[in-house]
Formats: sequence, C-alpha cells, structure tokens
Amino acid sequence: MTNTTTYAPEVLAHSWFNTDRPLLLSGLRGKVVVLAAFQVLCAPSVAGGIPQAQRIYETFAPSDVTVIGLHATFEHHGAFSAAVLKAFIQEYRLKFPIAIDQPNEAGPIPHTMERYQMRGTPSLVLIDRMGFVRKHAFGAVDDLRLGAEIGALTQESAGLAQTSAA
Amino acid sequence: MTNTTTYAPEVLAHSWFNTDRPLLLSGLRGKVVVLAAFQVLCAPSVAGGIPQAQRIYETFAPSDVTVIGLHATFEHHGAFSAAVLKAFIQEYRLKFPIAIDQPNEAGPIPHTMERYQMRGTPSLVLIDRMGFVRKHAFGAVDDLRLGAEIGALTQESAGLAQTSAA
Amino acid sequence: MTNTTTYAPEVLAHSWFNTDRPLLLSGLRGKVVVLAAFQVLCAPSVAGGIPQAQRIYETFAPSDVTVIGLHATFEHHGAFSAAVLKAFIQEYRLKFPIAIDQPNEAGPIPHTMERYQMRGTPSLVLIDRMGFVRKHAFGAVDDLRLGAEIGALTQESAGLAQTSAA
Amino acid sequence: MTNTTTYAPEVLAHSWFNTDRPLLLSGLRGKVVVLAAFQVLCAPSVAGGIPQAQRIYETFAPSDVTVIGLHATFEHHGAFSAAVLKAFIQEYRLKFPIAIDQPNEAGPIPHTMERYQMRGTPSLVLIDRMGFVRKHAFGAVDDLRLGAEIGALTQESAGLAQTSAA
Repeated sequence: MTNTTTYAPEVLAHSWFNTDRPLLLSGLRGKVVVLAAFQVLCAPSVAGGIPQAQRIYETFAPSDVTVIGLHATFEHHGAFSAAVLKAFIQEYRLKFPIAIDQPNEAGPIPHTMERYQMRGTPSLVLIDRMGFVRKHAFGAVDDLRLGAEIGALTQESAGLAQTSAA
Repeated sequence: MTNTTTYAPEVLAHSWFNTDRPLLLSGLRGKVVVLAAFQVLCAPSVAGGIPQAQRIYETFAPSDVTVIGLHATFEHHGAFSAAVLKAFIQEYRLKFPIAIDQPNEAGPIPHTMERYQMRGTPSLVLIDRMGFVRKHAFGAVDDLRLGAEIGALTQESAGLAQTSAA
Repeated sequence: MTNTTTYAPEVLAHSWFNTDRPLLLSGLRGKVVVLAAFQVLCAPSVAGGIPQAQRIYETFAPSDVTVIGLHATFEHHGAFSAAVLKAFIQEYRLKFPIAIDQPNEAGPIPHTMERYQMRGTPSLVLIDRMGFVRKHAFGAVDDLRLGAEIGALTQESAGLAQTSAA
Repeated sequence: MTNTTTYAPEVLAHSWFNTDRPLLLSGLRGKVVVLAAFQVLCAPSVAGGIPQAQRIYETFAPSDVTVIGLHATFEHHGAFSAAVLKAFIQEYRLKFPIAIDQPNEAGPIPHTMERYQMRGTPSLVLIDRMGFVRKHAFGAVDDLRLGAEIGALTQESAGLAQTSAA
C-alpha cells in the first residue's frame, strides 16, 4: 500500500441499492471504505470481485469497514439497465450498498470510473479512515493479502487518531 | 437414465445466437442432443450449468453431440432482453447455439420450458440419437456421471443403428 | 481412445487393501477396469488422481466398472511403508481395492509400473470388458471426458458381447 | 481476537526442517508468529491448513511475520516418521520452518500440542509481537478474516512499541 495526500473523490451515482440514502465518503471519515467496482455482465466480476466484496461485508464490523459496490457501466450500455442490476442483487443476495455509476454524456466511461481512473472491472479501491486512497487494484485480488491490508488500515488509522489526539 | 417412447418436443424460440438458422431436433436425428436451459441472472446457471454446457461443447465431437442452450426466461422479465444475452454470450465466450425461449402470453413460463415441464434453471435434458428424452435434471449435475451418460448414449445409439442395419 | 490387441498385464502386488483377496484382471473380464496409480506423497495424486478414483468408484455400478488403486512407489522408498498407506486410506476414507506395487530389486521402478511403462503418478489406465488397454494417461484427466470414455466402454463392450452371442 | 496475559509456550521439537537452528519464540519478540499445526496424513491439513501456512509465508514480509509449522503427531504413530515429513516437504515445496512435535512418553499427544491444548489438526495459533497468544483455531480458517487478523496484529504491536518508546 502507498500513501497519498489527496482525498478519495466522491462517488457520483445515478441511483443506489441496499441503502435508503446516497453514501458520501466525507460522511464516512473514521471508517475504512472498500470501493468495489464491477459489472454484472463481466465474468471476472461475477466469479471474483462481487463475491469478494460480499465476503468483506460479512467479515468486518460495520463500525470499522464500509463496503460500497459501484456498477461501472463502461461497456454494453445498450444491455444494461437498473432493472438488470436489481434482479442481479436479488439473485446473488448482495447486502452491501451499491451505486450505479453516473453515465457520462461525453463518452462511454461513467463519471466515478473516470475520476478514479479505473482501467476496467473488477477494480478495488481501499480508502483509509482519513479519506485517502491507499490501494487501487484492477483484476483479481488475493483474499489473504487483501484481508491483511484492510486489517492494517483499521489499526493504523486508530493509531493515527491517537497520535493526533496527543 | 430411463427409456421413453415420446419424441423430445421441438425448441420454440424467439431468436437464436451462434447459429445462422434455427435448430430443429427432427433435423438432428443421429446425434445426441444436450439441451441446457439457463438464465443469465441465475447464479447457479452462471457458476454451474452454463460453463458445463460449454465444456460439453468442447469435449465431444460435433458429429456425435450437439449442444443447444436455452435461455428460459421465467422470472425477471422486465430485466431481461436479447441485448443482455448477446453481451453475456460475448463476455463468457460461449460458442454453442443458444435460443431465447418463446415468451408465453398466458403466463411467465415460456413455451419450451412449459413443454418440457422444467422446474427452473439450470435444467439439462439429454436426447438420444433417435430423438427420445433420456435424462431430465434440475440443478447441479456431476461432470463424471454426465460424461458417462453422454458417452453411453453415443455408443448405445450406434449399436441400435447397427442392429437396424442388420 | 485407441484399440490394442494385447491384454492388459496383471497387477503384481506386494499387498492389498480394501479386498479380502488379490484381484486378477483375468477374473474381471466382462467389466471395465479403471487402474489408478498414485502415491500418498505425490501432491497431484492427493489433490487429483485419488479423489477422482474414489468418485469413479462411487459413480459407476460395481457390475459395470471395477476401480483398482495402485500405489506405485517409485520414489521416497525410505519414507513409504504399508502403515503409511493404511493410515492414508483410513483418513481419506477410500473404499476401492488398492494394491501396493511389487518392489523391484533391480531398480526403483516397481513391477506393475514397469510393465505398464507408466511415466509417473498419477497415471490412469482404462481396460475394456475384453481385457484390452484402451486409455493410458499421465497427469490430470478431465472428469467429463473421462466419464464419457468409461461410459462408452461400458456400452461398447456390451454391444460386442451381443454381437458375439448372435 | 482476544487478549491474554500469558506468554505463548515454546515449541518443543524432536527435530526441525527448513531452518539451520531451532526457533525460540522468545527470540522472535517483535514479530507476529503464526504457528500452524498439521499432520501429513490428515486430509483437512493437506487440503487446507498446510497450503494456507505456505500462503501466509509468501504473503507477509519476514521482518513482520514468522510462520512455524508444527507436525503434531497425535495419531498414526506407527505410520509417521521424519522421512515421511521430509518427502512431504519436498513434494509440496514447503519453504517455512517446520518442527516435529516432541513425542510424549506418557501418551499419544506430543508435548507442544499438549501445552497449547490443541484439539486436533489443523490448528492455528497467532502470537503477537509481545509474545502473547491472540488467536487459537481448530479446523478451517477463512483467508480474508485471517489476513485481517494478522494484518491488524502487525499494526497494533507497532503502535504499542511506539507508545512504549514515548
């Protein structure tokens, strides 16, 4: 993991599922945030990224870690709709909040994907308790290593908080 | 596997992919036919039935075995479209012929699914060289057993042909 | 699968497990025989070949297919003993007959392995109902294809038997 | 994970592999130690615990985490020998230090297993940088959760060290 000095950009969403209000990163300071970008018609997302996001959601305490799914529709625009995602969420029993990335009139890459300069799906972003991006991965991510990185972020930030409180 | 005396009913299709003309079972006499029903928004289909159908397609000689995919849309009608299936086929690199089951104005169960009295997806039907249904399974099917059944059907029918030629 | 005109050589065994008497291929005419060679200290055997042999044993009717395990000790002679295999069989709950290949005073390759010219473990040999070798594979074997080959052998030989009876 | 106030007991070993000297926990203060108990003739160890220990060894920096394998021979004493373990380590390409638990003349449970009151194999113990046991699990352990716990321990202890240095 690397250190950065810019805050993670906010998620721009067309709509949200599994939450009664839009999530703002600025409102999640103090928590580690896992931003998991995927597409329902992307095989590596369905076999890897999406179930991994669900596992993260089930493994960590909500007081420590927030998982946000992002449907980054950058291909097959004519096939995708909110109804497809809704059915997918139901069939795969996903419980974490999921946003549909805001479409971009200027091109195929939606706004959040563009802001984060994601290379495709699945992509995974770890944001620390201070709001900084600490990991940005494209493709498959190993569970053991990812667990270690999230676990370290939960502890490290608590340490920083203690330091700043001194 | 059991013996039946009624011909497998024809597939009624709204449209076809991966073939330049509709497939008729009556035109496939002499071949073993594997009819694999699935839905792109059904998790057990995506993880099990669909890749298994592709493996069958890649394992057996086209002169012996024909694989037909059937998108049996019996739920999430508002989410599904031909464009969704087209993108799915492309992303999952499916090569075998796939039909969209003919919608039924009388209810949610499409025509082919109803004819075969399928209980859901994934469903798998084995049709022998004579055109008779020999296996009809709902849910996960073991590769080893399925291979044995298909392998037996290819041999058995050849024996019948030899018998009838004698 | 290929056709051969020499009978599969008999298994030469130091000792047997899961059977109260040694198995002779000549006594198994009329059945398809799966000879699965492995070693308990060979990772691909433990992860692949051995559980596959157990699956074959559980999938096919004993009246059609006989599975014979062969512990082909061609390496780690100082580590292996009958007690190791006995504990392994118990822990992995193997139910099919297993022979320890007869050690060879002339070198590290035991007698059955040498007779069959096996290249290592796991190796798999399919013997048809007439007693002829029809497949000989080294390394991982796909379940679907293997099932098809065994299934075809069970049917094919029955056909031959019918022919010869006519 | 829980907090304890007793130091993890030292490993009592009959012999060691993959290290040129015995490892003492007292000499590993400042590092997180993963103690992974297994048996080469225990199926869940071979399929789960052992490859997981190897993954931990490959994932974390040696300066942060030390992995110690423990062959806790509590059954099949007549089948096991140092030669069996040596061949196993070679075949499975294990690189982390592994001890054979010291046999116990008073009974089947070897000394280290008894000291830690392990219930069987595989068992996994996490020891923090201070030398305290923080997790003790029997059976399969999820990679994501385990990664998080190890990751947290590496950070937490560093924090403690900074605190004590202040």
